[in-house]
Amino acid sequence: MTQREHLRHKRPTELSGEREAIVACPPLRSNVNLSRIVRTASCCGFRRMIVCGSAKVDPKIARDGSEQVRLDVRRSLPPVLKKLRGEGYRLVGVEQTSDSQSIYEYAFQPRSVIVLGHERNGLQPDVLELLDDVVEIPVYGLPHSYNVASAAAMVLYEYCKQMS
Amino acid sequence: MTQREHLRHKRPTELSGEREAIVACPPLRSNVNLSRIVRTASCCGFRRMIVCGSAKVDPKIARDGSEQVRLDVRRSLPPVLKKLRGEGYRLVGVEQTSDSQSIYEYAFQPRSVIVLGHERNGLQPDVLELLDDVVEIPVYGLPHSYNVASAAAMVLYEYCKQMS
Repeated sequence: MTQREHLRHKRPTELSGEREAIVACPPLRSNVNLSRIVRTASCCGFRRMIVCGSAKVDPKIARDGSEQVRLDVRRSLPPVLKKLRGEGYRLVGVEQTSDSQSIYEYAFQPRSVIVLGHERNGLQPDVLELLDDVVEIPVYGLPHSYNVASAAAMVLYEYCKQMS
Repeated sequence: MTQREHLRHKRPTELSGEREAIVACPPLRSNVNLSRIVRTASCCGFRRMIVCGSAKVDPKIARDGSEQVRLDVRRSLPPVLKKLRGEGYRLVGVEQTSDSQSIYEYAFQPRSVIVLGHERNGLQPDVLELLDDVVEIPVYGLPHSYNVASAAAMVLYEYCKQMS
């Protein structure tokens, strides 16, 4: 048998610079989902998120993410998305649409805004029409849709892998 | 502007056969985490999980996963892991250990058991010593560890992508 030792909470992988990508969330139903996304984003080295409305992060769930990730709170996404596009960010939504590409084949630009959708309604029309690209995560079984925090984990994972 | 239409809950990607992989969870602290993993596993086309102890799946969280995924309840993981290895499964743990490989480079075998760890303690020594391989998900920031359900989402995503 292998002599295998735990290395829990070992040093993180060093990044050569700050992550250029930003995660943007519309008003979500659940601050638990939001808080989970904040933790994942922080672990993935993201330092900025756009959140909307009465977003409240639970530090028991988000852990250090509640301090490490800067949250810009807006009333809605479209104005800030337009501004970020003007700053050279590519706007990438996570959704199933008529023109969505499989995330398996999608190549992220470092400077991206990853736009998540509402738990029930997904991305709103005024956000959808602004996006440069839409990526979908292949689904193989019921309920045919991922929880938003699980979907965020998959997308941030793929982004990090591509940037590594 | 692109004329972009929502296709929420569109038909899933067809699998040529049943997923050969199995997800195994030790006794977890949180049935919420377990239920989230069940939903993700179901969406990813997994049909079987091994769970331990007083595992209770909340169908409000797991959604259809609570019916689609067969849960084999055991007292602990080592006996069933030994049995599955005898049936040709490769035992792959998710953990940071002295010999863990980055999941970015890991090649899954179709017939794998993906073994998750406890929220606080990770994989127990009697499980660790049984594993064929250990994969770790690179972490880039605090709290230097992913929530178990988020980690599961990332690993199942990677498995599905490799099998696609």
